[in-house]
Amino acid sequence: MADPGATWLARVAAAVGPAHVLTDPADVEPYLVDWRGRYKGRARAVVRPGSTEELSALVRVAAGARIPLVPQGGNTGLVGGATPDGDGEALVVSLSRMRRVREIDVANATLTVEAGLTLAEVQQAAAAEGLLFPLSLASEGSCTIGGNLSTNAGGTAVLRYGNARELVLGLEVVLPDGQVLGALRGLRKDNTGYDLKQLFLGAEGTLGIVTAAVLKLYPLPRSRATALVAVPDVQAAVGLLGDLRSALADRLTGFELMSRFSLDISRRHHPDLPDPLPGHAWYVLVQADDPRAGSSVGDDLETALGAAAERGLLADATLAQSDAQRARLWALRENISEGQRREGPNIKHDIALPVSSIPAFLPQAERALLAALPGSRLVIFGHLGDGNLHYNLSAPEGAGAAAFMEHAGMVNRIVHDFVHAFHGSISAEHGIGQLKREELPRYKSAVELDLMRRIKRAIDPHGIMNPGKVV
Amino acid sequence: MADPGATWLARVAAAVGPAHVLTDPADVEPYLVDWRGRYKGRARAVVRPGSTEELSALVRVAAGARIPLVPQGGNTGLVGGATPDGDGEALVVSLSRMRRVREIDVANATLTVEAGLTLAEVQQAAAAEGLLFPLSLASEGSCTIGGNLSTNAGGTAVLRYGNARELVLGLEVVLPDGQVLGALRGLRKDNTGYDLKQLFLGAEGTLGIVTAAVLKLYPLPRSRATALVAVPDVQAAVGLLGDLRSALADRLTGFELMSRFSLDISRRHHPDLPDPLPGHAWYVLVQADDPRAGSSVGDDLETALGAAAERGLLADATLAQSDAQRARLWALRENISEGQRREGPNIKHDIALPVSSIPAFLPQAERALLAALPGSRLVIFGHLGDGNLHYNLSAPEGAGAAAFMEHAGMVNRIVHDFVHAFHGSISAEHGIGQLKREELPRYKSAVELDLMRRIKRAIDPHGIMNPGKVV
Repeated sequence: MADPGATWLARVAAAVGPAHVLTDPADVEPYLVDWRGRYKGRARAVVRPGSTEELSALVRVAAGARIPLVPQGGNTGLVGGATPDGDGEALVVSLSRMRRVREIDVANATLTVEAGLTLAEVQQAAAAEGLLFPLSLASEGSCTIGGNLSTNAGGTAVLRYGNARELVLGLEVVLPDGQVLGALRGLRKDNTGYDLKQLFLGAEGTLGIVTAAVLKLYPLPRSRATALVAVPDVQAAVGLLGDLRSALADRLTGFELMSRFSLDISRRHHPDLPDPLPGHAWYVLVQADDPRAGSSVGDDLETALGAAAERGLLADATLAQSDAQRARLWALRENISEGQRREGPNIKHDIALPVSSIPAFLPQAERALLAALPGSRLVIFGHLGDGNLHYNLSAPEGAGAAAFMEHAGMVNRIVHDFVHAFHGSISAEHGIGQLKREELPRYKSAVELDLMRRIKRAIDPHGIMNPGKVV
Repeated sequence: MADPGATWLARVAAAVGPAHVLTDPADVEPYLVDWRGRYKGRARAVVRPGSTEELSALVRVAAGARIPLVPQGGNTGLVGGATPDGDGEALVVSLSRMRRVREIDVANATLTVEAGLTLAEVQQAAAAEGLLFPLSLASEGSCTIGGNLSTNAGGTAVLRYGNARELVLGLEVVLPDGQVLGALRGLRKDNTGYDLKQLFLGAEGTLGIVTAAVLKLYPLPRSRATALVAVPDVQAAVGLLGDLRSALADRLTGFELMSRFSLDISRRHHPDLPDPLPGHAWYVLVQADDPRAGSSVGDDLETALGAAAERGLLADATLAQSDAQRARLWALRENISEGQRREGPNIKHDIALPVSSIPAFLPQAERALLAALPGSRLVIFGHLGDGNLHYNLSAPEGAGAAAFMEHAGMVNRIVHDFVHAFHGSISAEHGIGQLKREELPRYKSAVELDLMRRIKRAIDPHGIMNPGKVV
């Protein structure tokens, strides 16, 4: 054929079936923009392989023709990691047809799934066997497990179960040359050389495309206790965390910090939500779980909170007396983001710090931000149990969106410089993608950046895997 | 100078101080042989840097002169990974002078230590603050934390706390060119690019030298329950594991399988040890821990064992009623290796399997081994909770050592081929080193081996880091 592009696209179509190569602009459009509409790219086509073998064949074609590939799962990312760039050269590779539960091994407490299943479907497959897959995110109904693993997703249960990385025993990956790394082992100990799967977990698709994984499962919680706790200050919240860890160990599954203002905006837009402990500056939502029905976890939490109160670590507390009350306490936490959205323009950060540094970080960063942008309002909440805060700035009341958002670069710089000074991370759980790629050199050492690039070159020498992301 | 060797050795001496470059054969000798005396090598010298800066300087000299470096911690490894080869070109780099506790952060539940501290010293540093560093090995009094991390050590608490890899938040590494990767972050969430520390954990010193780490700490257990359980067969033991996981969740910290014969040889050489449940084929030693003093963990274990008995998963059980009884039950388990040593020549394996495959693996492997070596005696015990068995063969009674050990290659082949057929690992926790390097190509795919080599070349292009090990 005269058009070499047509030649390789025909070979891609032969690999995956012509019906699964989308080129009609109306079909392709949804894959070219991230769900928040912040990134928009172009692509030659969207390809939807139905199996690892088909994906391998298509990557071989792309590698031969040096066609960039942009893997995409549920397209729920927050950093533009699954959106192609603007030059229109790339193929978007959607994993949406690879949706098999390959195996569930109850005795080994493992589940082998393909990348295109949603996180909720993975949770359901485990629950159907009486087991828990503990990763849990706001977007779990639409994000895919492949995306979760490629971004090393976090969420609310990291305190107890770790990040996505910690939940993986085995991985299958299509490499940039089309070869398949088949390492779907369900082993809890394996020291036979480098742990290759670690390379691809959290690499945001820049080293290969995750197609399947062996996941760790846990006992399902069968009793649960939830408390809203008012604390005198953040230092006390950190002390309370230590006390509850000692008292409950791994039965402590949630420890969410909320500032009074973050509760206020949650309730301002949901006035039906309770305000059981009015008049305090900081709150913690505590959750504890036990695998046994009818366990003493509620009594144990109450006892531990009583002891903490005697140590001055809490000002007041209320325990949910029913699942309905529990849901309403969690709704306070879960509606902060929505409340903030309705409150007007805002600038968000996804930061992590050593838990011990958070009490010193907060006032320093606040002082600098209020000096730079007087009247702006801090919305501080997040997973204090693992040091991850959603540290956001809402515009002063009545401020225009455009004028406020002009300051985003300056605000990011202030926040991230403080985070760096306190040995923290500028991306705790959302990743780098396009959004923070240019910021990395400011906060990572030259040695780290060089090592990342060496890894990238060693595994993807032609740079076809998700170019322009991360490294 | 005329001797270029003298030139660079002088520069090494300048980097670390002449007193810390050992060249006298009597001083060097202990570093050239592994503790079991299976590997013996030669070296130009032993160098003992006192700080990361000194190590960095010496690696720069070695890199420039292309001198191989063999890092060595406590020299307690089982696969020859810390012993130089026989060509006498290498420097042994002992981390024994890098022994500082750099920081303990109680509120962040982290401990920052240098590589040369022994594991026991690390445990003690944590315990002094009321916290637990849970890694625990037979050699903990002499193995070093740097070696533990470089080999991704396992041990008896992996069921609950994971391998060494899972216990690390941050790492400092001297790279093969002498640059220092300074990533000593104490963060539980950090998604800012590739997780570089994972490369060096378990790499057995072939990619760089680990000099310090930020370790995760846990609440100290303050109440404990221990039971010896007789099970009708290994399938029942696997069922019991699932039941206890559901009943106790992460309070279940130990689940050790022992065959009757392994108990017999433990007791044969320690007749004072108890035999509370005689006449069964298989036993499990169960341990459960709770961070609270006076918790219900003992009652909970007893209740769970009662329920398992009703399901036919156990034949008999006894709970330790005192710490002394607990110690004597554990002594049954801990003396198996010594009992086996006294029983005569033996061939050992450190294998992992999906827990669910172990009941099918055992009779198949046993049949093949007894057909190949009639009269030989299987000594089967290990960490069933994480699928890791020490699967050993003792010579027939009265057999000569030399004649029996001639069959080691054949026995290894039979065992490892069955392990591979059941999707297991030929090295669960001991690593590859020199011992299993030649076996890797039989059990790892060409894709995996190629990726390992690409990583090695990318990070250590001149191959000076622990050559001849792993890859």
